[in-house]
Amino acid sequence: MKKTLTVAVIGLTTLFASGSVLAQGKPEVPVKQRQAAMTLIGKYFGPMGGMASGKVPYNADVVKRNAGYLDALSKMPWDGFGAATQDVKSRALPAVFSDTAKFKEAQDRFTGEVSKLVSTVAGGDEAAIKAQLGAVGKACGGCHENFRQK
Amino acid sequence: MKKTLTVAVIGLTTLFASGSVLAQGKPEVPVKQRQAAMTLIGKYFGPMGGMASGKVPYNADVVKRNAGYLDALSKMPWDGFGAATQDVKSRALPAVFSDTAKFKEAQDRFTGEVSKLVSTVAGGDEAAIKAQLGAVGKACGGCHENFRQK
Repeated sequence: MKKTLTVAVIGLTTLFASGSVLAQGKPEVPVKQRQAAMTLIGKYFGPMGGMASGKVPYNADVVKRNAGYLDALSKMPWDGFGAATQDVKSRALPAVFSDTAKFKEAQDRFTGEVSKLVSTVAGGDEAAIKAQLGAVGKACGGCHENFRQK
Repeated sequence: MKKTLTVAVIGLTTLFASGSVLAQGKPEVPVKQRQAAMTLIGKYFGPMGGMASGKVPYNADVVKRNAGYLDALSKMPWDGFGAATQDVKSRALPAVFSDTAKFKEAQDRFTGEVSKLVSTVAGGDEAAIKAQLGAVGKACGGCHENFRQK
């Protein structure tokens, strides 16, 4: 049993090599991973942004699920912006690497607003949730404005 | 204040259009999103697979964080395999779309093993955690074997 598991795990370690420590030193990997996190943040924020602006009918179950997902996703992109990734083609502006303190501040603002969204969603007040969705959206936009190419 | 938030939310809705209901009907979008989820599952499972097989030193804090992330990520890929995505170039095998019951079973097995990982991690028994990491790995591999091109 133990042997079978070990073999399975070694197989899987190889399988996931492109996403693991074994792929250290290939700066394309963290770039792909941070972009994947942004793609999923877009997937789960998108419909909620639509609900907050009234373009999509409000759905409390979707908001609860998506806010929970965002809580995890909002923490995932940031270790993908290491100095080693500076020369990989992407929309990251040079300020990401030159103004790291301000970039960190913008990250913290975003993760903080998402945390607040999760607690606001738990409270169940639709108007407060929509207002907090606006605050999350502003935190996304603030960072994109200064640190991402148009 | 309300107006500012509304404007911000509308702006963000546009910003995230590619990931939202506004992009319905473009099957490339769910394909990109499901691949993003797999990329991040690889990012966070990879190091734990290495720990389970002894290639990477065991780190309880990383395991706790990554297991929590996987709990959310493990639920994200599946709505990206709709019938409309069948003709988009990817490594998904035809069985994804023809044997949907078996594909659903494989998804449920994976999310179930990840849920068990989260509770095993909470228990704190390193040997049990490593065994459960093996079970998660087998669930990944089982699905890839039958539903993903080599």
